[in-house]
Amino acid sequence: MNPVPETGDTHTHRLKIGVMGSASGPQMEDPIAREKAKQIGQEIAKRGHIFINGACPGLPNDALLGAKEFKGFTVGVSPAFSEYEHVHEYLSPHEHDLVIYTGLGFMERDIINIRSADGVVIVGGGIGTLNEFTIAYDEGRPIGIITNSGGISNSIPHIVKELCRREIPPNIVFDDDQTVLMDKLEAAIRAFPLPLRKDSRVRDQQLPG
Amino acid sequence: MNPVPETGDTHTHRLKIGVMGSASGPQMEDPIAREKAKQIGQEIAKRGHIFINGACPGLPNDALLGAKEFKGFTVGVSPAFSEYEHVHEYLSPHEHDLVIYTGLGFMERDIINIRSADGVVIVGGGIGTLNEFTIAYDEGRPIGIITNSGGISNSIPHIVKELCRREIPPNIVFDDDQTVLMDKLEAAIRAFPLPLRKDSRVRDQQLPG
Amino acid sequence: MNPVPETGDTHTHRLKIGVMGSASGPQMEDPIAREKAKQIGQEIAKRGHIFINGACPGLPNDALLGAKEFKGFTVGVSPAFSEYEHVHEYLSPHEHDLVIYTGLGFMERDIINIRSADGVVIVGGGIGTLNEFTIAYDEGRPIGIITNSGGISNSIPHIVKELCRREIPPNIVFDDDQTVLMDKLEAAIRAFPLPLRKDSRVRDQQLPG
Amino acid sequence: MNPVPETGDTHTHRLKIGVMGSASGPQMEDPIAREKAKQIGQEIAKRGHIFINGACPGLPNDALLGAKEFKGFTVGVSPAFSEYEHVHEYLSPHEHDLVIYTGLGFMERDIINIRSADGVVIVGGGIGTLNEFTIAYDEGRPIGIITNSGGISNSIPHIVKELCRREIPPNIVFDDDQTVLMDKLEAAIRAFPLPLRKDSRVRDQQLPG
Repeated sequence: MNPVPETGDTHTHRLKIGVMGSASGPQMEDPIAREKAKQIGQEIAKRGHIFINGACPGLPNDALLGAKEFKGFTVGVSPAFSEYEHVHEYLSPHEHDLVIYTGLGFMERDIINIRSADGVVIVGGGIGTLNEFTIAYDEGRPIGIITNSGGISNSIPHIVKELCRREIPPNIVFDDDQTVLMDKLEAAIRAFPLPLRKDSRVRDQQLPG
Repeated sequence: MNPVPETGDTHTHRLKIGVMGSASGPQMEDPIAREKAKQIGQEIAKRGHIFINGACPGLPNDALLGAKEFKGFTVGVSPAFSEYEHVHEYLSPHEHDLVIYTGLGFMERDIINIRSADGVVIVGGGIGTLNEFTIAYDEGRPIGIITNSGGISNSIPHIVKELCRREIPPNIVFDDDQTVLMDKLEAAIRAFPLPLRKDSRVRDQQLPG
Repeated sequence: MNPVPETGDTHTHRLKIGVMGSASGPQMEDPIAREKAKQIGQEIAKRGHIFINGACPGLPNDALLGAKEFKGFTVGVSPAFSEYEHVHEYLSPHEHDLVIYTGLGFMERDIINIRSADGVVIVGGGIGTLNEFTIAYDEGRPIGIITNSGGISNSIPHIVKELCRREIPPNIVFDDDQTVLMDKLEAAIRAFPLPLRKDSRVRDQQLPG
Repeated sequence: MNPVPETGDTHTHRLKIGVMGSASGPQMEDPIAREKAKQIGQEIAKRGHIFINGACPGLPNDALLGAKEFKGFTVGVSPAFSEYEHVHEYLSPHEHDLVIYTGLGFMERDIINIRSADGVVIVGGGIGTLNEFTIAYDEGRPIGIITNSGGISNSIPHIVKELCRREIPPNIVFDDDQTVLMDKLEAAIRAFPLPLRKDSRVRDQQLPG
């Protein structure tokens, strides 16, 4: 067994980087967003990280194709129960090295998808991606935002600070260059270990015994 | 067994109305938001509907207290595994007539919370409420927004149309008066039956057999 | 808020009793099992407890009908996403006072179903009920077994002790009389508070800080 | 995208084989069970399949070590939210090539664990393994039972046929030799495609439209 970490995740394993973004809607066809998605997939694979997405079409699939160009190991977290449902009902790609069929539908899939990754990258994005952002934010997962990729990715500080009146924590990083963004995200992953549990607000220290 | 509906939910049962909103952060202390939360809880109870919230503090708890003033039947969907964890770790109220302990944490709790209701009302709200909004939106659940209650409730059309570039469907209704809002929400619940499954985009008609 | 319990659930609320058992297969048609199921539903309602089942056909539905004879408040935890799916795809009854539509399918529904109850009663039962028993056992939920009701209910000590080589904990009680069984189950619920978390084996005391 | 299958999963990807069994209790220390667990892990890796377990101690970990001897690609599906919780609270190993942190606890972890695999192997096993067996059985997942490995693995036909009064379907296979068992399991995976959805009893053909 790896040595037990003292204060957080060791990350002695290969880093796992998730990519989220528009799987439907107008951002999916934006050539700039598609190019940025492909580039981040390439960058993840070049660095030897494990690539994860929701086994969905759209920008996360563009990222997958980029990761495969550089022989990245790729994982898909599917909402479907089986390959057959994945292909026939969700009409989704499954060219990954490994697909986890959760059978849980989109919403729970989004949760498992995020928790599977040491850090997540967001490119473009509509309502579904906003769902994933709010999960990652609330659970303290490190997030890299590809700026100028359209959709909510252009508006995260506006959404968090002005609309929700919350803070941008230091483990959310921004850049429109995939190399710089990955440098920042890796630094955030190592600097800010995840909380012990998903409900990080829980006050264990008050428990008796 | 009740007669089988032909095209959607019958709603021959008592309507179940969920209330979502800030359980932490600055909106929780806004006196206008708190008053509006209490009023919607009162209105739900006056109409004989079942009141549902996430068994959390904040604006949904203000709504609970309003519902209890008018003897509403109240249900809480807790993230905790047990009453003891609910009280000691989540520091949450449990004065409901019935608390469902999911043991699933905040994120999955949000999903069950929304699916438990025929329609949901949003008052105030930060990141957690935005998570709940995106779930209800994506799954086609009727939503009533209490406008001018602060937080994301002031910005839903902006978020959906300008930031996410999606449409406001006709089962999302808006008003700053609790009576008018409930009239609109009830009409939306009856006019727009839920899709068969949570993944409403699934194309069953293409299946063989 | 109710006073904070010192060592476990207060149970100052109405007790919630779940009923599990065969929803398909041969036990479902056994007249003795059906009668025992009806009787336990009646007994739960007579005592003023909230009745919970999985909103399924079979023995749990016989128990529901018994509970309704005595005006019990009844809750169903459905695998379906909507009433329409519940009726048309799951072909299931929904005469409860409140149905929670989880949208999670049978397996996760079973988990929520058990966690919703302060204690569960098992009558008859095949593979699906065995699934529910193993969840309740592993999570330390009090269980009342109606003996001589067929299926696994006749074999729980054999399964636990001889096949699995585990112990029967004191919060699992047995009787073939519904009145005696409910006396024993209520005593077990009050004597053995639930663990803090679902994963009761977790060693919090070893955590730093 | 791979060609769309006509009637079920294509299995053009590397097969994913899960290994379940005692993670605690007396079977965990049985030398025969431990040797059989190691052998099945070795066999899975020798055949080039992806090895999956619940990232738990005990027999599934013995299988993991066997798979690693033969350079198998290994995946763990953890109940924990983070590596830190995995190591400190669950006291569990994480030497896998990839750990999926679900944050869902044991019971939901069991469900995802099973759905992740094309087929599962059961060795030894107590209550927790019985839970996993009932999930795999109910959802129609191919199962290989290592006979004479102790615990429930010696008693599956007895449990299914005599206690639950159900049938042993043809995609559940038995052998005490790991090579023969894997031959049988691979044949079952290819012969019996998974149902479309987890709730295979759902009657889609009756739906309107």
